[in-house]
Amino acid sequence: MDIKTTIQTIPNFPKQGIMFRDITTLIENPTAFSYVINQLKEKTTNLNITKIAGIESRGFIFGAALAKDLNLPFILIRKKGKLPAETFSEEYELEYGTDCVEIHKSSLNQEDQVLIIDDLIATGGTALAACKLVEKTGAKVASCSFVVNLPDLKGASRIVDYNPSWLVEFEGD
Amino acid sequence: MDIKTTIQTIPNFPKQGIMFRDITTLIENPTAFSYVINQLKEKTTNLNITKIAGIESRGFIFGAALAKDLNLPFILIRKKGKLPAETFSEEYELEYGTDCVEIHKSSLNQEDQVLIIDDLIATGGTALAACKLVEKTGAKVASCSFVVNLPDLKGASRIVDYNPSWLVEFEGD
Repeated sequence: MDIKTTIQTIPNFPKQGIMFRDITTLIENPTAFSYVINQLKEKTTNLNITKIAGIESRGFIFGAALAKDLNLPFILIRKKGKLPAETFSEEYELEYGTDCVEIHKSSLNQEDQVLIIDDLIATGGTALAACKLVEKTGAKVASCSFVVNLPDLKGASRIVDYNPSWLVEFEGD
Repeated sequence: MDIKTTIQTIPNFPKQGIMFRDITTLIENPTAFSYVINQLKEKTTNLNITKIAGIESRGFIFGAALAKDLNLPFILIRKKGKLPAETFSEEYELEYGTDCVEIHKSSLNQEDQVLIIDDLIATGGTALAACKLVEKTGAKVASCSFVVNLPDLKGASRIVDYNPSWLVEFEGD
């Protein structure tokens, strides 16, 4: 199945010059959504994943469905201030300013082999912060999986130590 | 299965005096997560649901897993400015100020019978706005399902016309 055709492109969102690759049309197509979850599942073979971590908020969509299918715990990686219990934090640089992701301290431990999930990798800033965050808990990042990679933005090369993979690519970003 | 015991309570989050009912511990328990999705699925029997709409962002977790299980389209209800294509918006009152939810205009039509999903209903402000938003598209709200209801805050009574249901209740909020 060619899932690229189910992802719509919105020019100039969220700002001028950006071609936004939008997975809302993919998840409105049950055949495509199911296919994506199966493809993500296949990539976990032989990785001995113990837990799935989804990055807020589109990572929750794919991560939750995958965790349910694999019968594995689902862990949230959220923006600062959203998780109610004790957290680890990881700050990262944006084009202007900084952002921060958090994880509950109790969610992972050093026995865990974690699969991190998000819808898309662009510059890789959030993904790299998510990997470092998982390591702060003592757990190991077994892999990072994305539905979409934007190769021109070279995000995957920033997380090459964390076994990145993706299902489709859009060039020209 | 008693899923109440899998939901942790964090006192004074996000502010003093609030007992926060936190589903992160539920979704870290695959048996509990699977049970919840099955219970939500059972409530859809005879409703002729055509699409599932999840409210950002914890509604994405339960909504996406349920949509995948039911093989139905999954639609996002998001905070203002997050959806890239043309949207309908619905503003609603908070304790201080207002908030706004949006939906893609192309996601629903007048043939649709929509199940709205969120993790929790408290005062019902967001849930009511989500119902009105779905109606703006011409679609019908067949039901609103939540994992947790806080009956003291009487949110369910505000959406009584939209067939609300939930799996567990916490009193004393």
